[in-house]
Amino acid sequence: MSIKIKLAEKAKDVEKALKNYLVIREPKKLYEAMAHIPLAGGKRLRPVMAQLTCEMVGGNGKRAIPFAAALEVIHNFTLVHDDVMDDDDLRHGVSACHTVYGLPTAILAGDSLFAYAFEMIAESEVEDNIKSELVRHTAYTVRRIAEGQQMDINFEEEETVDPELYLEMIRLKTSILFGSAAYGGALIGGKDNEEANDLRQMAIWVGLGFQIWDDYLDATASAEVLGKPSGSDIRQGKRTLLVIEALSRTKNSERNELIRILDDNSNTDSDVKRAVTIMSDCGALDNCRKQALGYLNGAKNTIARYPESDARTMLEELLEYMVTRGH
Amino acid sequence: MSIKIKLAEKAKDVEKALKNYLVIREPKKLYEAMAHIPLAGGKRLRPVMAQLTCEMVGGNGKRAIPFAAALEVIHNFTLVHDDVMDDDDLRHGVSACHTVYGLPTAILAGDSLFAYAFEMIAESEVEDNIKSELVRHTAYTVRRIAEGQQMDINFEEEETVDPELYLEMIRLKTSILFGSAAYGGALIGGKDNEEANDLRQMAIWVGLGFQIWDDYLDATASAEVLGKPSGSDIRQGKRTLLVIEALSRTKNSERNELIRILDDNSNTDSDVKRAVTIMSDCGALDNCRKQALGYLNGAKNTIARYPESDARTMLEELLEYMVTRGH
Repeated sequence: MSIKIKLAEKAKDVEKALKNYLVIREPKKLYEAMAHIPLAGGKRLRPVMAQLTCEMVGGNGKRAIPFAAALEVIHNFTLVHDDVMDDDDLRHGVSACHTVYGLPTAILAGDSLFAYAFEMIAESEVEDNIKSELVRHTAYTVRRIAEGQQMDINFEEEETVDPELYLEMIRLKTSILFGSAAYGGALIGGKDNEEANDLRQMAIWVGLGFQIWDDYLDATASAEVLGKPSGSDIRQGKRTLLVIEALSRTKNSERNELIRILDDNSNTDSDVKRAVTIMSDCGALDNCRKQALGYLNGAKNTIARYPESDARTMLEELLEYMVTRGH
Repeated sequence: MSIKIKLAEKAKDVEKALKNYLVIREPKKLYEAMAHIPLAGGKRLRPVMAQLTCEMVGGNGKRAIPFAAALEVIHNFTLVHDDVMDDDDLRHGVSACHTVYGLPTAILAGDSLFAYAFEMIAESEVEDNIKSELVRHTAYTVRRIAEGQQMDINFEEEETVDPELYLEMIRLKTSILFGSAAYGGALIGGKDNEEANDLRQMAIWVGLGFQIWDDYLDATASAEVLGKPSGSDIRQGKRTLLVIEALSRTKNSERNELIRILDDNSNTDSDVKRAVTIMSDCGALDNCRKQALGYLNGAKNTIARYPESDARTMLEELLEYMVTRGH
């Protein structure tokens, strides 16, 4: 069975929980807007990460479902608000929430999803002290995700971005929610904060690898693998870690050529190819790949300390999938 | 000592808690945007309601401070997002958050305030089972507030609004957060859910009275009392409960005249006076006043059941102030 099918199988309980929570009630426009993005699909990587971590440490994964579903709802709330902030019309091929329901309702839908997530955590059947810590940690994580998004907004106004700062931005914006999944899963599975923190670090690493691999894949994979045109980051002039790394490694004419291609809105396929060649020649592409695989290894080493189990095996497959997918 | 001075005195601990939480850190733009509205002042009615309810039922009001501050932060998060949704440039004479920091950062600042509120509740020193209930109830309340805001948005597209539905909208949008203050205060003070729910209802009533009194005051009080031009709701054509009531009580030429004044952007003082006369003659103005005072009485009857104490006396003064201020 492929990992994709296994993931879908594992996510069934969370899908059910999401559908139960996101029923349409009055005022309908608000609840339809809330359900729009979360029920449009998704791999449910964060919930599955929470369940598998819980099971790997010896806990009952079913007890992690409400928390796991809450993280998915939080992930979706950030997507809905990010699309408003970035004025993006599409989200994974689906119309953005604000495109369909308008800006005021999209903001409200995000807020309500956020609130709902805390209702889900508060109603989950875990000990009250664990519940308190899940609430505190999740709220803290959302605040840090907002810091990451603010850093990203700030970067757009800057000519050059320091690669270290950029890495901190994606750590906050993308990775720490994976961290919360593993952290909460471990706590629900009966582990103490210290061990849960180790597993949080594991998931943060794989979250970083996941994001960096995404940049790498966009420049190197075929359109069939990506499900979108290859090199779309380059076409959009996005300052990914790969691009920032390339800009810090190139000089003079090559650097200027790369900038020209990134800033041009009407690139041909050969322009995109040329940009990839520059990023490859300066070593940025290879550096990116190595960095992603390095994070993956760190994560794999952490889970290797746990006794063999079906959950550990599947978690390992999940980590591999997140960082080496498409190649 | 006037009630205003007493309120300011009582709110000192919450002010301190807010200042401690809302320190500026990196990324500065985000934290400055978060602090902008909450630290611009305010009467802190919700926190004081929580503290006084806690004390009236025999609890230690200091233990309610983190929860009380969290409610104030939630109130401010809704103000920041509401101003974005309504594209309002001013909030109580201060520039709206998005006017100063831009739309993306204002959305983020609201989200982060929301998250912070749950960190504050999670870190407060109350029993874990009470904490869980505070989290569940507060998250539920925020979701209901969003429902109220969505109803308000929907009403803007409608010709006429049913007064009952309008009342439900302000119950959600304005009153239930006062309800949470009393509910949480009672729980922290050691009372069970049933008694806390009675006190929640008390605060919802006073919240309704507060809002309806606001409409009444705008039409009847002088500019000095209001601190803004009298009749500004009429000038802006706002569909307040008073206006909805008047529209349901008038017919033909009077109703048309009232609608004409409300929809006109360049009203003279005598137009505004004429609108007030129509609202007075049809009985809407008096009905509004009676409704507000009826809610106040319901609230006062609930707290009269408690033994005499400084907290009860001050809570009664707070209720009186909220519903009869300016007259």
